[in-house]
Amino acid sequence: MAIGRKEDLEQARAQHLADEQDVMVTVLSDRQLLIPGFVDTHIHAPQYPNCGLGYDKPLLEWLQAYTYKLERKYRDLEYSRKVFNAVVRRTLNHGTTTACYFASLFQDASLILVDAVLKYGQRAFIGKINMTTLAPDDYVETPEETIKLTRKFIESVRSKDCELVEPIVTPRFALSLEMDSMIELGQLVKEYNVNVQTHISENTDEVKQVNSKYGLPYANVYDKAGLLTPKTVLAHGIYLTDEELSLLSQRGSSVSHCPDSNTCLKSGMCDVRRLFSFGIKVGLGTDVSGGASPSIVSAMRSALATSINLSFGQKNYKPLNYLDVFYLATLGGAEALSLEHKIGNFEVGKEFDALIVDMGVENGNTDLLLDCTPLELLQKFIYTGDDRNIAKVFVAGKSVK
Amino acid sequence: MAIGRKEDLEQARAQHLADEQDVMVTVLSDRQLLIPGFVDTHIHAPQYPNCGLGYDKPLLEWLQAYTYKLERKYRDLEYSRKVFNAVVRRTLNHGTTTACYFASLFQDASLILVDAVLKYGQRAFIGKINMTTLAPDDYVETPEETIKLTRKFIESVRSKDCELVEPIVTPRFALSLEMDSMIELGQLVKEYNVNVQTHISENTDEVKQVNSKYGLPYANVYDKAGLLTPKTVLAHGIYLTDEELSLLSQRGSSVSHCPDSNTCLKSGMCDVRRLFSFGIKVGLGTDVSGGASPSIVSAMRSALATSINLSFGQKNYKPLNYLDVFYLATLGGAEALSLEHKIGNFEVGKEFDALIVDMGVENGNTDLLLDCTPLELLQKFIYTGDDRNIAKVFVAGKSVK
Ligand SMILES: [Zn+2]
Ligand SMILES: [Zn+2]
Repeated sequence: MAIGRKEDLEQARAQHLADEQDVMVTVLSDRQLLIPGFVDTHIHAPQYPNCGLGYDKPLLEWLQAYTYKLERKYRDLEYSRKVFNAVVRRTLNHGTTTACYFASLFQDASLILVDAVLKYGQRAFIGKINMTTLAPDDYVETPEETIKLTRKFIESVRSKDCELVEPIVTPRFALSLEMDSMIELGQLVKEYNVNVQTHISENTDEVKQVNSKYGLPYANVYDKAGLLTPKTVLAHGIYLTDEELSLLSQRGSSVSHCPDSNTCLKSGMCDVRRLFSFGIKVGLGTDVSGGASPSIVSAMRSALATSINLSFGQKNYKPLNYLDVFYLATLGGAEALSLEHKIGNFEVGKEFDALIVDMGVENGNTDLLLDCTPLELLQKFIYTGDDRNIAKVFVAGKSVK
Repeated sequence: MAIGRKEDLEQARAQHLADEQDVMVTVLSDRQLLIPGFVDTHIHAPQYPNCGLGYDKPLLEWLQAYTYKLERKYRDLEYSRKVFNAVVRRTLNHGTTTACYFASLFQDASLILVDAVLKYGQRAFIGKINMTTLAPDDYVETPEETIKLTRKFIESVRSKDCELVEPIVTPRFALSLEMDSMIELGQLVKEYNVNVQTHISENTDEVKQVNSKYGLPYANVYDKAGLLTPKTVLAHGIYLTDEELSLLSQRGSSVSHCPDSNTCLKSGMCDVRRLFSFGIKVGLGTDVSGGASPSIVSAMRSALATSINLSFGQKNYKPLNYLDVFYLATLGGAEALSLEHKIGNFEVGKEFDALIVDMGVENGNTDLLLDCTPLELLQKFIYTGDDRNIAKVFVAGKSVK
């Protein structure tokens, strides 16, 4: 594959490819852009039906009142199929070529999400949730089950033998498990060399309860269990101390910044500049349905708003700009999921996960009434675009929208 | 017109209307809502092509570098027609049944906006801008011209004899005019009994320059000119002092809250609860293109985000919720424009400015995978909906989408 200016490519083609019949050339219009596909580093597939609902309660109450109530429905495999097909189609439609999914507590439902992802051709990490406590009696597992089923789930996903889909170990958060279970999960992580995802330091009440349950800072709880690896992504990380950030940085673990969720659930404002200053890898997460939108374009706008609102009253604080959040949405996300060798930009040798953005699309939400440079088109897309402006989506070279 | 539950209406119809042939009954599905039309209390029609562009500079630099450069193009009447038709169609499409427009400095272009509004059937205030200083030489008027042309513009709009469209006196902001001109505008306001719109206290640098130019607090500058009336709407009002808020409250003037613009231009966070505590009327404004989106649904989401971000670190601060911002978008906006006797809700005697919202629409951005109560549908619409979910738009009873 070759990407370049029209003139250069035509010249190259004339020189080298004149007799090759199977070359497909796509010439973009002056209203179109080719950009890397978006990476959603944190999304809860079963919560998708709740998008936009229930933001009157803070995290721990919201989990009990809205989230677990919905998540229990995924014993119903028909409902699981309906929702997960919708989630994968919708996120692809919004340009999410790679998603890091919290699937279900239930093994069967989690495998249905795997099937949906395979069917529609998304790149994904999919994790069966581990949760043995602090949830309704009929929505927890025993410590034995949770390990046994995770092992089984990892092997089931690997047996699909599809490069696009990987299992990921998914302890819900430090209050959902006891230390013993987390340690056993840490051993599975080593044994299978899998990625890890969980939540960290999202809400002040949560942080207090974790500190009091374990007598440790939040990050140290996961570290003790062997869950802070270079392939670990931690959602939120709003209230991490400098010591915890140093620890994350040492371990090479990353943060999924979920600004829409942090606003909807009134969790707080995560300071991405501070994470960067510790050398921590950061990607964007929609955190559906803590976040209301499954769109990474919306996540970019939320990240801008949060960073700007954080900057007020702080002298010499440079809020993120549209290029910074574009980085978070693409290569930053790839780095957060340890996929930067495969995706995130168009370096030669990487796979072709890409979007064709069209700011002149008919029936869109935007009227392009100016001539724009490519960078201006990108600005307009980030600030005003939506799924209608995403004309084409490619995952590993295959057209999926 | 009668609105009610299906059963009640059928009974009423059976009893009273059996022989009336011309009754049209619309029964909503369980995924649809009938809500009042949205009121955009502050939007710059000529800036629409710049939506999403140029947010690297703060207000006063942004005006010079991006805004005035674009606004000067409206000497071209063909371009004016193209843009203003797009603005009116787009805002109607987003459910804005009433808009309070900053039109052009130019009389001819401003009248083209009037024509566009009449053509597509939107309710609107339209103001020819007054600006005699602090702009490029070829984009200001003389003090004589600005008054003469404003008088002419008011009479031109009134001569259209259409109840939906009203002229509004539109001094750009306190740095764009000298006190003498503002006083003359204040006299025009009295003479024609017209509404007034301008900007106030949007940016700390602007506030300083106004204070130093006039030796007065910002609100007192307008008050001295007779421009603070019960029919005055002031955009932004972020940095108003308690004394200034008391003055606004006494005068009955209102504030157009433009949270998207205040974020994009990094102006600050306006505290709507504080405005309420002074008894000030508040509506929402998109402030296109200080704000990137012409959608009041986006403005509601920005207002939520700003209020929530303001609440962090403040004990017992109750951020706005989705019902509060829905109020701002409808009846609050009507009050801010002194139209609450005509629009803003479905009280008997008011005009029928309404939207049919459909959360189950095909090809939308949202998948409705749950049964929802009407309030839940409204929440989902505010947090996740867009123009595709606005199935029908009515202004004064006439279908305009
Ligand atoms: Zn989450
Ligand atoms: Zn404005």
